[in-house]
Amino acid sequence: MGTRAGIVVTGTEVLTGRVADRNGPWLAERLREQGVDVAHVVVVGDRPDDLHAALEFLAGTEVELVITTGGLGPTADDLTAQVVGEFQGRPSEVDSEIEAHIAAIVERLSSSRNWRLDPQATAAANRKQALVPVGAAVLAPIGTAPGLVVPVAEGRSGPPVLVLPGPPAELQGMWPGALANPTVRAALGEPAEIRQRTIRLWGTPESELAAVLRAHEQRLEGLEITTCLREGELEIVTRFGAEAEDSYGGLESVLTDAFADTIFATDGRTVDEIVAGSLIERGSTIATAESCTAGLLAARLTERAGSSAYVLGGLVVYSNEAKHALAGVPTELIERVGAVSAEVAAALADGARGRLGADLGVGITGVAGPGGGSEEKPVGLVHLCVTDGSRTLARQVQLPGSRADVRARAVAVALHLIRRLLEETAAQG
Amino acid sequence: MGTRAGIVVTGTEVLTGRVADRNGPWLAERLREQGVDVAHVVVVGDRPDDLHAALEFLAGTEVELVITTGGLGPTADDLTAQVVGEFQGRPSEVDSEIEAHIAAIVERLSSSRNWRLDPQATAAANRKQALVPVGAAVLAPIGTAPGLVVPVAEGRSGPPVLVLPGPPAELQGMWPGALANPTVRAALGEPAEIRQRTIRLWGTPESELAAVLRAHEQRLEGLEITTCLREGELEIVTRFGAEAEDSYGGLESVLTDAFADTIFATDGRTVDEIVAGSLIERGSTIATAESCTAGLLAARLTERAGSSAYVLGGLVVYSNEAKHALAGVPTELIERVGAVSAEVAAALADGARGRLGADLGVGITGVAGPGGGSEEKPVGLVHLCVTDGSRTLARQVQLPGSRADVRARAVAVALHLIRRLLEETAAQG
Repeated sequence: MGTRAGIVVTGTEVLTGRVADRNGPWLAERLREQGVDVAHVVVVGDRPDDLHAALEFLAGTEVELVITTGGLGPTADDLTAQVVGEFQGRPSEVDSEIEAHIAAIVERLSSSRNWRLDPQATAAANRKQALVPVGAAVLAPIGTAPGLVVPVAEGRSGPPVLVLPGPPAELQGMWPGALANPTVRAALGEPAEIRQRTIRLWGTPESELAAVLRAHEQRLEGLEITTCLREGELEIVTRFGAEAEDSYGGLESVLTDAFADTIFATDGRTVDEIVAGSLIERGSTIATAESCTAGLLAARLTERAGSSAYVLGGLVVYSNEAKHALAGVPTELIERVGAVSAEVAAALADGARGRLGADLGVGITGVAGPGGGSEEKPVGLVHLCVTDGSRTLARQVQLPGSRADVRARAVAVALHLIRRLLEETAAQG
Repeated sequence: MGTRAGIVVTGTEVLTGRVADRNGPWLAERLREQGVDVAHVVVVGDRPDDLHAALEFLAGTEVELVITTGGLGPTADDLTAQVVGEFQGRPSEVDSEIEAHIAAIVERLSSSRNWRLDPQATAAANRKQALVPVGAAVLAPIGTAPGLVVPVAEGRSGPPVLVLPGPPAELQGMWPGALANPTVRAALGEPAEIRQRTIRLWGTPESELAAVLRAHEQRLEGLEITTCLREGELEIVTRFGAEAEDSYGGLESVLTDAFADTIFATDGRTVDEIVAGSLIERGSTIATAESCTAGLLAARLTERAGSSAYVLGGLVVYSNEAKHALAGVPTELIERVGAVSAEVAAALADGARGRLGADLGVGITGVAGPGGGSEEKPVGLVHLCVTDGSRTLARQVQLPGSRADVRARAVAVALHLIRRLLEETAAQG
């Protein structure tokens, strides 16, 4: 596939899972836009030898560029610049210009935030962050850590290493400057776009998809297809060069035919985008009443900027008293059929709609677990209802997994129920 | 540090960031319990050559065991078993006993879920999943994919490879069986526990911590300290062998002295655990009224099983009408001081408390962005208030980052405000 790059993510906190890495994926996506493929992302702790081994591995995989993220902070476990310098045959020295630049940034930050910094400690931290391998190009810091482009020392061979900071905002802010650096530019070569398209199905088992793809194998030349099942959605991502555009068109029509009932996006749109777009188009508003998901649906509906145009608000009705007091669910109904029931889900949807004066109301009630289940109403049982006053869609599902899985999956089911109600209304109204 | 292992996470969806890896960190933690350290986690796409290169790298880093996750599914991009088999010098063959076993599982699954599966496609998928390297030990499937323990072929040298499925529930369910396997057991050796302790600070800059650690450097022998700043919390994780327990005690008292104002946990507890424990201990209940965070705080407070003992519910008051209708914020007040104001945050906290009949009420209102900011009230400005009727704590913060960052960070600020109110009441009441 042409030019390739390797990424090293540093940090024991990432290796041990206390922090999820956002930089590797972000960089992989930016590189793809440049026509550059990523073969490996190596996560490594804050140990010099392990970082050195990772650099050696990636430099040996025929990549044109190695990128490191993290390990540029002021603490002693931040070692990336020095290790990369040694690896490339370039020892590090304090760059006094950069030291002064960092000192000015720290001074501005600390005075705007009223930090009381110990001057000696601050000076030591600044000096540490100004250690730069000799002959490296410096990328202006967004936070306090400068980025680096470290070519291999003269007389040796290997790809250049681009050293970026760990905090995602700093790394992302530095990317345009990194791309403009001549060494990086030369390594990445002429951009030759790799296209990527996404198709999404809701409710098709992965084995059915596998069978259809196998049956059409010979028509899929030049396409790199990966499939992924997530929260009940089957995502099909295809990557290809411009010359395989026709093959991709063939794949898209095969899937559209085979999965007419479950395909909900051929243009990469997520269910969130479809629901938001459809609410905006109709000028409709929405409100929620959530028991087991306890605000997750409202939070997800408001993830998008501008969502105040259609989300009025929601009710988190964790206790039965709240179901009655906030959403107007009759106490008698809860006593008769139980809080986890189709009737209460419907009453919650009506209550959300009525109390917030919204066009659409959504109700969710279920057993998230791990406790609270019974033979009749086991952990994972969730009732959902969406109504616009004239049309109502209800579903009962039995969801697998942990408490977090059940809650997340129930939100996905709710979003697809909203999507279906909006589609049906559009089709019939 | 003794025994080490390497992990390969497979899947283009992980490499490109469409799915966050949960398996690498989970396995690293389980291995630590066995006294085994992980040096590298390599993320690799669904390409045989790249997987082969990753195996070669890890096998060469002096590890006793290599673990792979993912790539055992029924689709053509699921290649792990075959590639590992080739790498270890063991070609794959269909194991008919496993094939029958998988067929029975699929049959049971599909009949309980009313799937209409194409028999031929299903048979092909089952056969694909029953391909096993000759001489490998099979771990019973939790889903449909069996796990594998693949020793290196006779006459060759290298660590065994433990092949586990990608879905976290399947991988985790298979772990006890994997640990019981004699080859895995022999590779991991006698458990020699690596201890790990976590201390958390709220509001201390990382450079201050670095200075304190530097000043006591000679007392920290035998401790591997990593620090990580996340949502305003500074997390200090220390790993050490049993012989360094005294050094760790020294570190803990140094930090407790130096950061008496900001240290909030020396026992690894999260702010979530502290708040939950304190509410349970007092028998108090809590309710929320959220504007910019729109349910995220309620969702976070209910992440824990058993949270219905103290969370009554919440109000998501995205529109001004909802602030008035649901939380009783006077319309006149909103018109006079604006929805994002200390006064409205206080009225929301009171409203949440009153409407839900809770002991504690929390109010959050802010500008999450990216639009909606002004010179006077810029993006990132958030007002928060917590009250128990007699005591009230309020804060105004200016949070950096994206819309998602501002929302997540505001939730963290709210949790610490709740923690402080509970602490102060406990100390003074």
